[in-house]
Amino acid sequence: MNNFLYILDLVGTFVFAVSGTIVASKRQMDPFGAAVIAFITAVGGGTVRDVLIGSVPVGWMLNLHYLYAIASAFLLTFFFKKYILKLHRTMFLFDTIGIGLFTILGLQKTMGAGLSPLIGVMMGTVSAVFGGVLRDVFSNQVPLIFRNEIYATACIMGGLVFLLFEFLGVDEVISTSAAMLFVIVLRVLAVRFKWYLPALS
Amino acid sequence: MNNFLYILDLVGTFVFAVSGTIVASKRQMDPFGAAVIAFITAVGGGTVRDVLIGSVPVGWMLNLHYLYAIASAFLLTFFFKKYILKLHRTMFLFDTIGIGLFTILGLQKTMGAGLSPLIGVMMGTVSAVFGGVLRDVFSNQVPLIFRNEIYATACIMGGLVFLLFEFLGVDEVISTSAAMLFVIVLRVLAVRFKWYLPALS
Amino acid sequence: MNNFLYILDLVGTFVFAVSGTIVASKRQMDPFGAAVIAFITAVGGGTVRDVLIGSVPVGWMLNLHYLYAIASAFLLTFFFKKYILKLHRTMFLFDTIGIGLFTILGLQKTMGAGLSPLIGVMMGTVSAVFGGVLRDVFSNQVPLIFRNEIYATACIMGGLVFLLFEFLGVDEVISTSAAMLFVIVLRVLAVRFKWYLPALS
Repeated sequence: MNNFLYILDLVGTFVFAVSGTIVASKRQMDPFGAAVIAFITAVGGGTVRDVLIGSVPVGWMLNLHYLYAIASAFLLTFFFKKYILKLHRTMFLFDTIGIGLFTILGLQKTMGAGLSPLIGVMMGTVSAVFGGVLRDVFSNQVPLIFRNEIYATACIMGGLVFLLFEFLGVDEVISTSAAMLFVIVLRVLAVRFKWYLPALS
Repeated sequence: MNNFLYILDLVGTFVFAVSGTIVASKRQMDPFGAAVIAFITAVGGGTVRDVLIGSVPVGWMLNLHYLYAIASAFLLTFFFKKYILKLHRTMFLFDTIGIGLFTILGLQKTMGAGLSPLIGVMMGTVSAVFGGVLRDVFSNQVPLIFRNEIYATACIMGGLVFLLFEFLGVDEVISTSAAMLFVIVLRVLAVRFKWYLPALS
Repeated sequence: MNNFLYILDLVGTFVFAVSGTIVASKRQMDPFGAAVIAFITAVGGGTVRDVLIGSVPVGWMLNLHYLYAIASAFLLTFFFKKYILKLHRTMFLFDTIGIGLFTILGLQKTMGAGLSPLIGVMMGTVSAVFGGVLRDVFSNQVPLIFRNEIYATACIMGGLVFLLFEFLGVDEVISTSAAMLFVIVLRVLAVRFKWYLPALS
């Protein structure tokens, strides 16, 4: 992973941890509970991916920068929640960059472990969205993602775009950038124009 | 695993995915949520077993036929729910064959990894019932299995029957068939005569 | 692990299983559900730790004494609940010894797998408290630990005390005893004087 993607990965982790802390505080948790929820939100998706593909000890145990990013996010949100809530547009932007990046990095790690492209797209999506699913399960809510607008769908399609570009022999830097951009644009448009999947009835 | 058991395994996976989709649609999930719940219901038990015994990457990542069975089940249920709901007796039959089979295959895989027969019975039962437990946890319900009639109990007893036959030196094809038949008959009788375990009070 | 710690570990497992059974019976579960919850409460924390650090098959699969401790605890509680409920002070004491011990043993196992001290403290705390978290998730409650008095905090601080003593070159028997004692005293004082962390607002 190059330096630029690595920094984006840490920023994505930071933003996921901020959103976990905010959700936990809305649910009246104590600081310990909120820190756990922040942590689960930030690394839950990658942890599930690593456990399922057998890449253990899981990633965040081997590089403590992720823990530091989460701890800073938690403390900042704890002490400056009022200001951080005002940054919701910036937060949304980085959250969206985060899911785009986590999808592609998760896909690459899964295929690097010798698994098929289809499993790669699944595990890329799990990396991006399962932290939020676990956050909701551990705070006793129906996972938002199961009733929500285009979010995981954007990850799945972004993964497919990446595979298509790779199949066409495009350079990996371009494939990665294009697929991330695809996830980001689709997610922004979906929120802007209120696209969503209809409930099964 | 011989061809006949392999096909039954895929049919069991298919039927579990159908039941997961039906449950998800009753809980007003969107199609993505329903697909995730179908998937978790179908392979959740085997996934937990594989992770705990250290057989990773987990089974369904290495043979995509399971994913195809789940995807077909999801799409068929999505588009033809009305007709599938009418087949509830057939569904019940295959669901019951599924738990019988998953129990014995899970037990064999666990003992094949060098673990003890007792752990084999536990992991066989986990293979059969934990998909349903996770389906309920992820859709924010108390797992049905924890308050329900004879179901996991049938798996445990079927596993013990298998061990007894193996201990007596009976041929594995016969042990497997007899144990599966035991699970199926016990489950059918329990539903027919409304046998259940009393609640702890 | 020496014999004394090993026996304490089994006693801790036993007491966690008793408390799981009691919680399950309050939630109207059937005996199978209660046994599963007892089991998850007793070994859930160590199982999550083992899966995350890659120590699989997980510990309780390799030494059946833990299963026997859980089964005895379940059966005793099932048949003699009235008497066991009267022993709540004794239960509290062993529960507290249990979390102290599980924290330090979990920390040692994690560092023994070559991971950093910070991850050791985290996984020690997970070993001690995550069984209770999973018990609550599987019985569809917001985990008590996330809204509760000083409990996980005692584990984290006990882990740090252990690391400090090790850093100072103190003998491991003394470090272990001192850290466990620290967890126990802090927990007892916290309950006695109703210390708790304020909810995030």
